[in-house]
Amino acid sequence: MSVNTLVRNIKAKGNPTVAGLDARLEYIPAHITEKYTAEYGCTLKAAAASMMEFNKGLIDALCDVVPAIKPQAAYYELLGPEGAVVLRDTIAYAHEKGMYVIADIKRNDIGATASAYAQAYLGETEVGGVSLPVYGSDSVTVNAYLGTDGIEPFLKECRERAKSMYILVKTSNKSSGEFQNRDMEGAPLFVRMAEKVAEWGAELMTECGYSEVGAVVGATYPEEQEIVRKLIPHSYFLVPGYGAQGATAKDIANAFNDDGLGAIVNSSRGIMCAWKKCDLDYQEAARAEAIRMRDDIVSAIR
Amino acid sequence: MSVNTLVRNIKAKGNPTVAGLDARLEYIPAHITEKYTAEYGCTLKAAAASMMEFNKGLIDALCDVVPAIKPQAAYYELLGPEGAVVLRDTIAYAHEKGMYVIADIKRNDIGATASAYAQAYLGETEVGGVSLPVYGSDSVTVNAYLGTDGIEPFLKECRERAKSMYILVKTSNKSSGEFQNRDMEGAPLFVRMAEKVAEWGAELMTECGYSEVGAVVGATYPEEQEIVRKLIPHSYFLVPGYGAQGATAKDIANAFNDDGLGAIVNSSRGIMCAWKKCDLDYQEAARAEAIRMRDDIVSAIR
Repeated sequence: MSVNTLVRNIKAKGNPTVAGLDARLEYIPAHITEKYTAEYGCTLKAAAASMMEFNKGLIDALCDVVPAIKPQAAYYELLGPEGAVVLRDTIAYAHEKGMYVIADIKRNDIGATASAYAQAYLGETEVGGVSLPVYGSDSVTVNAYLGTDGIEPFLKECRERAKSMYILVKTSNKSSGEFQNRDMEGAPLFVRMAEKVAEWGAELMTECGYSEVGAVVGATYPEEQEIVRKLIPHSYFLVPGYGAQGATAKDIANAFNDDGLGAIVNSSRGIMCAWKKCDLDYQEAARAEAIRMRDDIVSAIR
Repeated sequence: MSVNTLVRNIKAKGNPTVAGLDARLEYIPAHITEKYTAEYGCTLKAAAASMMEFNKGLIDALCDVVPAIKPQAAYYELLGPEGAVVLRDTIAYAHEKGMYVIADIKRNDIGATASAYAQAYLGETEVGGVSLPVYGSDSVTVNAYLGTDGIEPFLKECRERAKSMYILVKTSNKSSGEFQNRDMEGAPLFVRMAEKVAEWGAELMTECGYSEVGAVVGATYPEEQEIVRKLIPHSYFLVPGYGAQGATAKDIANAFNDDGLGAIVNSSRGIMCAWKKCDLDYQEAARAEAIRMRDDIVSAIR
């Protein structure tokens, strides 16, 4: 689905946030994990079943409040092929509940291989002349260290299927400046990356005023965020780093344009682990935290 | 397994090459794919079964000649969860046949998430106090745009389990120079990346004289290859671009050190699709091409 759909969802819910579904087993309440280890033993199957129940419960609790989810591929791959089933089924379940899905895969490769990734997550696979959906997400994250060749196959899927993508520009982690902030011919690498995002995104403008090509810009670097915001006003920002990684709503205000749009702020551990900090069950706790986060961010951008 | 094991395999077989297993369906002979579409219809299951038979056939045909395989994750992800099973089982089968496995995943993320990737591909997952293997490869490829935070979890697995990794330095694709060759404070970005590879790899030196931290350096850029070779003499190079991507054995000579070691050259389509260019069956054709490639490269580095 296009960034248009994302913006429609954000407006309908009055909520520019996305729930990161990065379920490590230790984030899942024991009553869930113990049920499945009792049934399947201490196996990847038990872990995957726990993750699926937890994800479904979170989606049920969040779907009328939060417009989108962002499953982080790493945590699914950590459970092997069983985890791949959970990723596919979580995406499908979120779609049933009307949520937009950003698969956080940070893939990158040369053209032929990037095509396979783009088809796997945004497009379809052809088997004997029949086109089959695979993971079916609406949007992906991509690393552009390899340049245009590795981006074009994702642009193609965005173009042909009205999907969207976010390119890593300035990441939220501590060491992101090691390369991203060093000077490249007169401007930091993250600025050079943003310039390319503008170039790649120009042909994929949509009616909501934003391009299908967005950028990942960490909330933990408000100054860089402001620079990138001005440089690529038509790119949606996917903003990690709020909450568990330390950024506040104030840090995030710069990510938004004057229309109150232009960014979607992620919280993963903050929402998934909310139950650990209160007496509510995990669903109620996640929902309460999502509402708190929404109000916190909405108040900061007005 | 450590880079030591790789070097031992390379010496034992007199062959510094790796077979890329990137099985797109169109690379697989029709007698295989038709058998499974007849059984399972035009489904991902049929595609995965075809890929598994093809991969096993290739491994059988190559295992006494070629020291290592490099499955490219994208082509497995393209078949959804069924493809994840094929990836896992291909790695296990290659191990049974004594081959070294480099999982070409080009992953990258912030620390917590990079840990999940590192555990999934090089380490183990813990479920209820029990440690379980997941994909179990010996080595991975990694993109370091995020800096040290995203690399450290892979270093940890290399350190604790004697595994190895290859960091993208100069990739083989046409547009790799868009970022990688631009000047960063007095040297191209790919040089800055190589400097970091040296830094990260210093603590992981092994008895064969090489570090567990290697570099991806495309055969299609012999000049850059020479620069990087001098800069990081103790890092093994994973060299894509030979054959189908256009580089010759002469282009690759610079990737090797004077000891005749220091690089492993990949061929994917050249080996997998060899049957399309001759009258041999796919196994004989792959083996003949692997031997031709070995002789071609060995003659160029002596």
